[in-house]
Amino acid sequence: MQKNKGVVIDASVRGATINASDNKKPSRPRRTGPSKAKAVGSTQKETVKIAFLGGLNEVGKNMTLYEYGGEMIVVDCGMGFPDQDMLGVDIVLPDFSYAEQNADKIKGIVVTHAHEDHIGGLPYLLRLMNVPIYGTRLTIGMIQRKLKEHGLLRNAKLNVVSPGDKIDLGRFNVECIHVNHSIPDALAFAIRCKAGTIIQTGDFKIDSTPIDGDMMDLTRVSQIGKEKVLCLLSDSTNAERPGYAVSEKKVGEAFETLFQKAEGKRIIVATFASNIHRVQQIMDVAHRLRKKVVVSGRSLENVVGVAQELGYLNIPEGLLITLDKIKSYPSDELVIITTGSQGEPMSALARMAFSDHRRISITNNDYVIISATPIPGNEKTVNKVINELLKLGADVIYEKMYDVHVSGHACQEELKILMGLVKPQYFIPVHGEQKHLQKHASLALSMGIPKENILIADNGNVIEMNKNEMKLGANVPAGRVLVDGYGVGDVGSVVLRDRKHLAQDGLVIVSATINSEKRTIISAPDIVSRGFVYVKESEQLIEKARQTARTTIETCFKNNVTDAGIIKAKLRDDISRLMYEQTKRSPMVLPVIMDVK
Amino acid sequence: MQKNKGVVIDASVRGATINASDNKKPSRPRRTGPSKAKAVGSTQKETVKIAFLGGLNEVGKNMTLYEYGGEMIVVDCGMGFPDQDMLGVDIVLPDFSYAEQNADKIKGIVVTHAHEDHIGGLPYLLRLMNVPIYGTRLTIGMIQRKLKEHGLLRNAKLNVVSPGDKIDLGRFNVECIHVNHSIPDALAFAIRCKAGTIIQTGDFKIDSTPIDGDMMDLTRVSQIGKEKVLCLLSDSTNAERPGYAVSEKKVGEAFETLFQKAEGKRIIVATFASNIHRVQQIMDVAHRLRKKVVVSGRSLENVVGVAQELGYLNIPEGLLITLDKIKSYPSDELVIITTGSQGEPMSALARMAFSDHRRISITNNDYVIISATPIPGNEKTVNKVINELLKLGADVIYEKMYDVHVSGHACQEELKILMGLVKPQYFIPVHGEQKHLQKHASLALSMGIPKENILIADNGNVIEMNKNEMKLGANVPAGRVLVDGYGVGDVGSVVLRDRKHLAQDGLVIVSATINSEKRTIISAPDIVSRGFVYVKESEQLIEKARQTARTTIETCFKNNVTDAGIIKAKLRDDISRLMYEQTKRSPMVLPVIMDVK
Repeated sequence: MQKNKGVVIDASVRGATINASDNKKPSRPRRTGPSKAKAVGSTQKETVKIAFLGGLNEVGKNMTLYEYGGEMIVVDCGMGFPDQDMLGVDIVLPDFSYAEQNADKIKGIVVTHAHEDHIGGLPYLLRLMNVPIYGTRLTIGMIQRKLKEHGLLRNAKLNVVSPGDKIDLGRFNVECIHVNHSIPDALAFAIRCKAGTIIQTGDFKIDSTPIDGDMMDLTRVSQIGKEKVLCLLSDSTNAERPGYAVSEKKVGEAFETLFQKAEGKRIIVATFASNIHRVQQIMDVAHRLRKKVVVSGRSLENVVGVAQELGYLNIPEGLLITLDKIKSYPSDELVIITTGSQGEPMSALARMAFSDHRRISITNNDYVIISATPIPGNEKTVNKVINELLKLGADVIYEKMYDVHVSGHACQEELKILMGLVKPQYFIPVHGEQKHLQKHASLALSMGIPKENILIADNGNVIEMNKNEMKLGANVPAGRVLVDGYGVGDVGSVVLRDRKHLAQDGLVIVSATINSEKRTIISAPDIVSRGFVYVKESEQLIEKARQTARTTIETCFKNNVTDAGIIKAKLRDDISRLMYEQTKRSPMVLPVIMDVK
Repeated sequence: MQKNKGVVIDASVRGATINASDNKKPSRPRRTGPSKAKAVGSTQKETVKIAFLGGLNEVGKNMTLYEYGGEMIVVDCGMGFPDQDMLGVDIVLPDFSYAEQNADKIKGIVVTHAHEDHIGGLPYLLRLMNVPIYGTRLTIGMIQRKLKEHGLLRNAKLNVVSPGDKIDLGRFNVECIHVNHSIPDALAFAIRCKAGTIIQTGDFKIDSTPIDGDMMDLTRVSQIGKEKVLCLLSDSTNAERPGYAVSEKKVGEAFETLFQKAEGKRIIVATFASNIHRVQQIMDVAHRLRKKVVVSGRSLENVVGVAQELGYLNIPEGLLITLDKIKSYPSDELVIITTGSQGEPMSALARMAFSDHRRISITNNDYVIISATPIPGNEKTVNKVINELLKLGADVIYEKMYDVHVSGHACQEELKILMGLVKPQYFIPVHGEQKHLQKHASLALSMGIPKENILIADNGNVIEMNKNEMKLGANVPAGRVLVDGYGVGDVGSVVLRDRKHLAQDGLVIVSATINSEKRTIISAPDIVSRGFVYVKESEQLIEKARQTARTTIETCFKNNVTDAGIIKAKLRDDISRLMYEQTKRSPMVLPVIMDVK
């Protein structure tokens, strides 16, 4: 654990906010009913503000700010993944400008768990302000690794906390509560200030038979519930699913069955890298059946490394072998744990499926288990990988064929149990798309929380609350900051629009050198295209475009138009029209005119 | 119905085949077991050949050719939709070159039903050869409309057939068998030649209570089964789903319940345009509840027009009103049937959701039913539309909340019933991805069809069969021909690769005018970028690139390099390196050098 006092602020890496189509100005929040609560005798000092910079109306980049009495804390600082229309974008960050403006007030960042949508933004935030970070041992271990990659570890102020700990952060006190999730060591927080107690769950489920021993600490939750909780912010991911999330233990039982069914074939299991419980169970079953385990895939190797180092994985001696040793073992003794359960094109499993893996070739002697459910949007890529594996003759166990995956998020009955124990005055569903938030709000209503005390908020909203009322303050910036390569925020709506245009119909460059004084064309117009048509078969079209360009320039000269800007605009119009008439496509037309006077 | 003898062949519209990543050379077919059948006493004349130009290892562009005794027939001629990585592509066609080579032999095209993946390729095929087309009244009606749009109707030879009809096509005789599907008037075919009888199902389900009266003609199927069927080619779309497909009638019952639940709100139902049974049921329920119906969305208006004209829709007088009249009716009397059940960005429902519809504004007085299941790959766009509708306050009924959608394809028990009645000697699963084909093959195995008589084929395979054996002939071209605007086949792998590159990181144009004889730079290097960085904030980088370009050209001149091609290559290298070092991005770098000697 690192504790240093140095402050790293790099103002040059400042996020420019973009307004993508579905990311308009933060909308006014929608209450399920009209507000009846009145502001009676509330003073500003007794009011706590909650500002959402991410995680609402989306899945990803969770970040919430709390403010009371001129001091602030941050809960989580996640990243998101780009939408399909964010061409070339690597990751998406929250807009940090509100946090930056208030950097002096921020006492610390408390982190619920080590998933990317809760920690992925930290390296970028730390460049703007070096605030202390608090998390459990595994969470801090994963953050350490991440900060090291970004060269930010030396100055970071990282603090390990445990369930039950109460962290003093100025006027706030944050109590850590153990919850179950698809990564070990996850926390919910009870955030206390003079305005009241607020519980924010992070991602959670209630697993009565978890792999790491302890069920979510509902005892502590119900004790806090007795204290009177001002507000509950709860995970909405599975609010549409009735019943309970199945215990992680069930997956272990399924592995036990399937490993036997594999009947001597080599077993390959693809799963999420961060699901350390899952990895432990695969290893346990493999060990019981006297098999050897290989871990393949960079992110998985990283996570297993950290988890093993910190004691979160219990790996019997001699169980793990390295990838280059697999030839030394018969296939019926091998279990390969790998990444690519979402069909990611560069993942180990995808490379195996497309016969592009350096060391693993798939044959009809392979038994592949995809221990995950496709995240919406990934169905097609996952299916592609499955189809290719099948073509190579492998058996493939996927989706709901067996209980090879369970969710890490609470379903309706669990969400209701939590509400019943917490008995909050106000309720704000978080972590989810609109449909999840609305469903979660209706669950709260069914639990007897009054309509006017339930609020569906949006990113950028600031909610002010005290015992007398919950109301909306002024909105703060909360757009999406796009990261592409080294650039943070330099890809905005104009750049994306151009990429989309180029992707759709390619481009045509019209170049010519003129002498505008003499009104002569010095080097004849030339046409270069990329991503537009197959040029060899379109010679006629290209020749027609050359002639059109010449005519356009000559007509300009005849009409006493010599300004290169105007000539360019005319060329763009004429060539665009020609191309559309001839091909019904609209490539980007870029005229390059050099004027040598 | 049109019957003309004119032949329209436009050889200029010839498809160039591309090899996309998952579209390699047709693979050798995979039998589930080693072939044991031997060629005993078979002569070439007794052998029928089946060539697959589409529909295997994919969903879409179904097209199958049968050849016997030097004559051919075609079953279906569909189109497919582009994959995500086919940037800018409108539709995908089968490679027609094998059909074209054999145009003289082709006696006719028999069409199973009027879905795009079975008829969408016809206008493009008819430009190459004008063969007679056979289909039911609705199918021919839909084809007529399509050919009219393409200006091909006048010369087309369209023939209406009915279930029970036997079509003589040279050495083939094709019997039409009524089947149930999500569009009325669908057929399976019993294709007879001296080599034997082959049944190809098209898309089908067995609906014992269909909307248009008749269950699939299993009586006829079992009679033919008694004649000894050489081979069955059957729809694999739902081979992974156990049990039976639910009857379309169930959806009507769900509408009845939901329309009551809507409690005076305006009802909007989104569904597939071609599902005429569904549209009929919505209209029936609306009529019973004394509501008015509006049809919104171009494709839906087209289909309803054709279906009504041909008597496939029974619309009570006064039920239909036009969109411009909706203001005259209270919202509780209105049912709007619309397109966009797959979240298509330009569809009527998407425009309503994004407040972009000219006449329909969504409020909390709307009750929206999405009567469809997202096709894999569309989950995210469908969710987006649902979330936006919810944000506007509408109630939204989607997916499995009620029985608002049923599949049009047979599930496992239906597939097995068909096999049991047909009792084919050979079995080839068609219409589906590898996982569907393999699952269907395993069902056949479970029904007692011997391993060696089941064959999983691929597009491009030609299967030769007679009573003694089933074997693979020489493969034929069967790639994907991409249509973009007017161009058929002029977008290939090079163009797509460029589009992908441009989409990822944009482009940088470096332009300069030089005099290579005098070794001078006449107009200084200039930099133009699109889709790369936000230029206003990247002035330094652009200036650096200008300097680099100047240095590169000057260095060339110093080293006696004056060839524009070599200078361009050096510029490309140097600027690419600079950009990657500075931004970690790899834009396409296009040097434009004009040499004025």
